Amino acid sequence: MGAKRPDRREFLRGGAALAGGLTVGAAEPALGQAPPEPERYVRGDPDLIAYGERSRFVTSVRIPHPPGGRESPDAFGLVFHVAAPLQDSVGTITPSSLHFVGTTRGSLMPEIDPAEHRLMIHGMVERPLVFTMQDLKRLPSVTRLHFIECAGNRARSTHKDVQESHGMTSCAEWTGVLLSTLLEEAGVKDGAAWVVAEGTENVKGASSFPLAKAMDYCIVAYGMNGEAVRPQNGFPLRLLIPGFEGIFNTKYLRRIKVTDEYYLNYNDYGHLSRDDTRAALGYQVGPKSVITHPSGGQRLPGHGFYEISGLAWSGGGAVSRVDVSTDAGRSWQEAEIQGTAQRMAHTRFRLPWSWDGQEAVLMSRCTDEVGQVQPTQAQVAEHFGRPDNPSAGVPGLDNTIQPWRVAGDGSVHNARA
Amino acid sequence: MGAKRPDRREFLRGGAALAGGLTVGAAEPALGQAPPEPERYVRGDPDLIAYGERSRFVTSVRIPHPPGGRESPDAFGLVFHVAAPLQDSVGTITPSSLHFVGTTRGSLMPEIDPAEHRLMIHGMVERPLVFTMQDLKRLPSVTRLHFIECAGNRARSTHKDVQESHGMTSCAEWTGVLLSTLLEEAGVKDGAAWVVAEGTENVKGASSFPLAKAMDYCIVAYGMNGEAVRPQNGFPLRLLIPGFEGIFNTKYLRRIKVTDEYYLNYNDYGHLSRDDTRAALGYQVGPKSVITHPSGGQRLPGHGFYEISGLAWSGGGAVSRVDVSTDAGRSWQEAEIQGTAQRMAHTRFRLPWSWDGQEAVLMSRCTDEVGQVQPTQAQVAEHFGRPDNPSAGVPGLDNTIQPWRVAGDGSVHNARA
Repeated sequence: MGAKRPDRREFLRGGAALAGGLTVGAAEPALGQAPPEPERYVRGDPDLIAYGERSRFVTSVRIPHPPGGRESPDAFGLVFHVAAPLQDSVGTITPSSLHFVGTTRGSLMPEIDPAEHRLMIHGMVERPLVFTMQDLKRLPSVTRLHFIECAGNRARSTHKDVQESHGMTSCAEWTGVLLSTLLEEAGVKDGAAWVVAEGTENVKGASSFPLAKAMDYCIVAYGMNGEAVRPQNGFPLRLLIPGFEGIFNTKYLRRIKVTDEYYLNYNDYGHLSRDDTRAALGYQVGPKSVITHPSGGQRLPGHGFYEISGLAWSGGGAVSRVDVSTDAGRSWQEAEIQGTAQRMAHTRFRLPWSWDGQEAVLMSRCTDEVGQVQPTQAQVAEHFGRPDNPSAGVPGLDNTIQPWRVAGDGSVHNARA
Repeated sequence: MGAKRPDRREFLRGGAALAGGLTVGAAEPALGQAPPEPERYVRGDPDLIAYGERSRFVTSVRIPHPPGGRESPDAFGLVFHVAAPLQDSVGTITPSSLHFVGTTRGSLMPEIDPAEHRLMIHGMVERPLVFTMQDLKRLPSVTRLHFIECAGNRARSTHKDVQESHGMTSCAEWTGVLLSTLLEEAGVKDGAAWVVAEGTENVKGASSFPLAKAMDYCIVAYGMNGEAVRPQNGFPLRLLIPGFEGIFNTKYLRRIKVTDEYYLNYNDYGHLSRDDTRAALGYQVGPKSVITHPSGGQRLPGHGFYEISGLAWSGGGAVSRVDVSTDAGRSWQEAEIQGTAQRMAHTRFRLPWSWDGQEAVLMSRCTDEVGQVQPTQAQVAEHFGRPDNPSAGVPGLDNTIQPWRVAGDGSVHNARA
């Protein structure tokens, strides 16, 4: 690769942002030659003109979660959850076609005619209301970037890649009406303290959450990434409870009841009991982050310059800082955060890195706007009184740091394995 | 509608944001009744698990532009350009499947294997370089929201809706390497003043632009809305020249040449000649805006509360202010801008409106960060010395204000007609 050294020198000359240098690519075609023509032209048919598709060369897909999938409890479907291919992610948005799906119906989903759909607001309100989709679209709306994350999104030593370890979170641009707008219109009665949201799913279709949260940041969303919410994410209406674990973000939303007590929610896990203090342990996500490139299952083609890139998020608000280590946590460098970090949204972080070809362990650590810091697995084990068994897993939500080991041959592996 | 008046009173009580009030929707189902079950459940097949689709109830599609389509010059395809359905847009992002397409090949597009694709940088540089896609993805990257707009996006009295009048602009989250990073690496020689970008299209595949612009904000993009750039938008590589008219944003980018003179670009319009001063007239877009709801072809179901919503953008930078008129420009109110306006990006604006059922003419006016203000059609006609003929059209890019007339029956029409 000697012929490429001049380029590396240039990258060094380019300063810190380019420290390390790139081993510039193939010698073919030779400089001055015209690059090859495309193998062929494709004639778009009317369907492609109406609604375009991705290239046949792009094969990134979602996978069942947990890896290998499992029978759903009622055998309605073969797939339990569906995880997003974060290893191929660029930027901050998850494409709607690749957004993770949490379900207890396997791949079964309600098909709802939006013209027939209604949202009812009742319980401890002055004026019970029923809204059509057309009504909702007349009301003052907001558009915000928010992540959703399933409580099942927990790193394990058995995970081969970031799709298996962190693929149960995604981020989209959601548009809809603030829940507070609807509740103010209905008129919340004195003594109300809780809200129960119900979706059109016989299983896992309801959740209780505090009225205080309902009045803050929650969105009754009909738009997702610039078009209608996708069926797998609750078409025509999904409740966004930004920062709370995924199960609270009720899909196929049809009813909101204001109450004075915490309700038992019907779900398949039982991690939401009538004990609201216990339930509260499951509310808020993060602070959390993961490196998506280089990550498990990928391979670095050679030493030299690389950009370390990943996603950070927190249920506590905006990401304020991300630090990256390339030496298993002995030293840390502050990464660059893309643009202005949004509240309860995935945030892309990046750090230039010159790989010397030696084994390296890569880690990222998120700090959020309220000062919360993402812990290591060992710190959490210590906290829960079992320092001798750090891999036992974390009760509640797992936001521990994910280490990736880059081997001398450039292959990348889960360093927990 | 007497039974619904209590709701309107509530919206009035809600204050300015809700001034006017909503006529709340259908009486069915009666309050307290359970909303209807979905007509059926859909079982997702493995394809839907891998890569999801939109609901069959969502039928928003792109249309040929100009309306009705036309034979492309070489009869390679039936469709000339393809316009985005902005009348259905929510938020700021255009879904990649609905992003407008400008082409002179009709629906014909190059199909490129990314493993074979190369980007060459040559001309007046110290070190000509050839990059593979893998090389480019190792370099420092950025993610930014940017619009692209075709010069053919010009309001006409014959346009029935906003898709016909403004559908040749879209906005996406683009990810890639700054062109300045690549040019600094190649080393631009003294005396260089222009850059020519060439794509893998035999027609409309090249453009010249000033070196100063090349060093500022331009992106060699491989990512679009969180996945690979779509084929209709230049897969695997598109050059983003934010703020410049669409034709400069070269698709299927394969070659960048640094030169000391302005090159004649091969295109089908001739509006880029060797006269670089004349060409300069076509560079920068905006300031511009359009109301997407209520807009032509839509119908308001009754008087009462509505949110007026639309998109604003400028090639000059970020949108700093949008004003809306509901009385044909006699009076203006400042609209709310969603979040932090990004530079050279669509920006969603909103204004609450109580429609009294009388005829109204709605207009929006964009002001950008450099103080440029969107003109009326009459102001432009005055400027070009034909005040007696305001509808003659605008030379160069047309960013005139689009008026929509709301008739007493709630139907919305192009007020230029």
